[in-house]
Amino acid sequence: MGIAIVRVKHGAGQPWGMIENDHITLLSEPFASHRDVMDAYFNNKLDTAGTEKLSLPDANFVAPVTRDIQLFCQGLNYASHRAEGGVKQTKGENLLFSKPPSSICGPNDDIVRPKGCELLDYEIELALVMKRDIPANTKVTPANLLDYVGGITLTNDISARDFMFGAPMLQWFKGKGQRTFCPTGPVLYLLDEDDSKLLDSLHLTLSLNGALRQDATTDLLIFKPHETLTELSTFADVNGGDMLLTGTPGGVILNATPKVGLAILLNFTNDRKRRAKLVKTQKSVRYLKPGDQLQLTIASIDGQVSLGTQENTVIDANE
Amino acid sequence: MGIAIVRVKHGAGQPWGMIENDHITLLSEPFASHRDVMDAYFNNKLDTAGTEKLSLPDANFVAPVTRDIQLFCQGLNYASHRAEGGVKQTKGENLLFSKPPSSICGPNDDIVRPKGCELLDYEIELALVMKRDIPANTKVTPANLLDYVGGITLTNDISARDFMFGAPMLQWFKGKGQRTFCPTGPVLYLLDEDDSKLLDSLHLTLSLNGALRQDATTDLLIFKPHETLTELSTFADVNGGDMLLTGTPGGVILNATPKVGLAILLNFTNDRKRRAKLVKTQKSVRYLKPGDQLQLTIASIDGQVSLGTQENTVIDANE
Repeated sequence: MGIAIVRVKHGAGQPWGMIENDHITLLSEPFASHRDVMDAYFNNKLDTAGTEKLSLPDANFVAPVTRDIQLFCQGLNYASHRAEGGVKQTKGENLLFSKPPSSICGPNDDIVRPKGCELLDYEIELALVMKRDIPANTKVTPANLLDYVGGITLTNDISARDFMFGAPMLQWFKGKGQRTFCPTGPVLYLLDEDDSKLLDSLHLTLSLNGALRQDATTDLLIFKPHETLTELSTFADVNGGDMLLTGTPGGVILNATPKVGLAILLNFTNDRKRRAKLVKTQKSVRYLKPGDQLQLTIASIDGQVSLGTQENTVIDANE
Repeated sequence: MGIAIVRVKHGAGQPWGMIENDHITLLSEPFASHRDVMDAYFNNKLDTAGTEKLSLPDANFVAPVTRDIQLFCQGLNYASHRAEGGVKQTKGENLLFSKPPSSICGPNDDIVRPKGCELLDYEIELALVMKRDIPANTKVTPANLLDYVGGITLTNDISARDFMFGAPMLQWFKGKGQRTFCPTGPVLYLLDEDDSKLLDSLHLTLSLNGALRQDATTDLLIFKPHETLTELSTFADVNGGDMLLTGTPGGVILNATPKVGLAILLNFTNDRKRRAKLVKTQKSVRYLKPGDQLQLTIASIDGQVSLGTQENTVIDANE
């Protein structure tokens, strides 16, 4: 078993802590980033004795990863999400994109719907956190995966669908890169040697206003973590601390009927018309609105490991 | 007039320098990043006396920006490039994306064509380098632009067209994010107060094997730097040192005839077929090949300010 790292607002500071049973033991060392926490842990130098205990319900969590990293992301990495996106092909290219790190926010922070956004959507995702740099052209395998991946955490890849399809040739970065579009945590689970099977046996759930909307297990990932990291390392520097969001399963709000495809394709080079037509096809679909409550969980199927629960409220930009 | 900062390989180190007439004065301070150089300069603390001089032809340039930054990029930001991309609309959405900083390489480094890439293309771009963080929701105006933009440099937004259109819903990040896909420099020109008009009066040229292919001036930018930074600051943290690539003018290799549009749109959800059809439409078009020579320049129209010359050779990944 690994350990469950968290970070909390406490007094004037934001100390790191470790979940033990029903409480959090605050770590004495004031680590500047999760990278430093991981370095200490994996070098057997993490002092877990702690100085103070906090009861779990009292904790005011902040993200357990800091914003000095790269966020690599995968799209269409579950068959159930491909199908609802109108993509029948089961395994083509690995669709990769990035979010700016300023999109990271705390696991219970409000999600801000930007001005002008009409089609706000959620996407629960398992995120992998690197414990060290991956050298160029590394062949990552199931056997050596945990040499590179040090931790896992719960993320929500919030998406403004109208922004994504608002520009000629699409704009993933603007549609998915807004502040508060990546609630992260509460737990950064640091993996142990005996956790090699864990990544394939995690259970994801997302509820909107109490109704279950996404429910899947990570054995269904189309491109496995070792495949994706192998590919990423061929073209970009993946560094210790960086995070990879592994894609979302089916159940998002956007339901890409043939009408949606047509609206996008037939208006590919006219931004205003394309966005208007897209929004029109979604008229009867209820997207996220101010006041909506999201609840997300990731835990191992056997119940041994929990990445905690995210609870967010959607608010408007000018609130 | 501002000053022309460069960085060179010299002995065992990579000192920073300043171009003066026909030589480079090496700066004595071993700055870790261009952010530190800029901090010193704009706080009137840059010691430009130097210790050693180097003749310009002897200089072995490295990129004058370090890789600890974000690269924000604009697409389709010149009417001439929009037209050749089949996009008639003159001003719709501002198309934004990012490149990973590991794509940065020296101004004269080889450009590596990745394995499997058949449609390698160039894109000369003016890049702006921030001198300080832009607070969220800042209204950047022509009048306060130089409070945020501290420097300008020459970049080439190298693009693998077949990678970009290889995934469902496009993949800009993979198509434009490969190592060596952002040659940068040689000059990081640090702007002075009297340079406010300079950004609109720069002349860009790109030649392929001696033939002029791109030739434009920055007054033609559709979204002006202050507009783009204003928009970026609404949704992402733009930090001191970060770079914004402002888009490329017409003259790239990809010539998006209606056939290209059809090949992409009709095969939108089948990766292999879409890429094969796209490549087929480009059969008679000569993309970048190993041995090709690129030469890029940016200088002010009045000839007073030069960002230097990039000269690169294209090589294959396994060379």
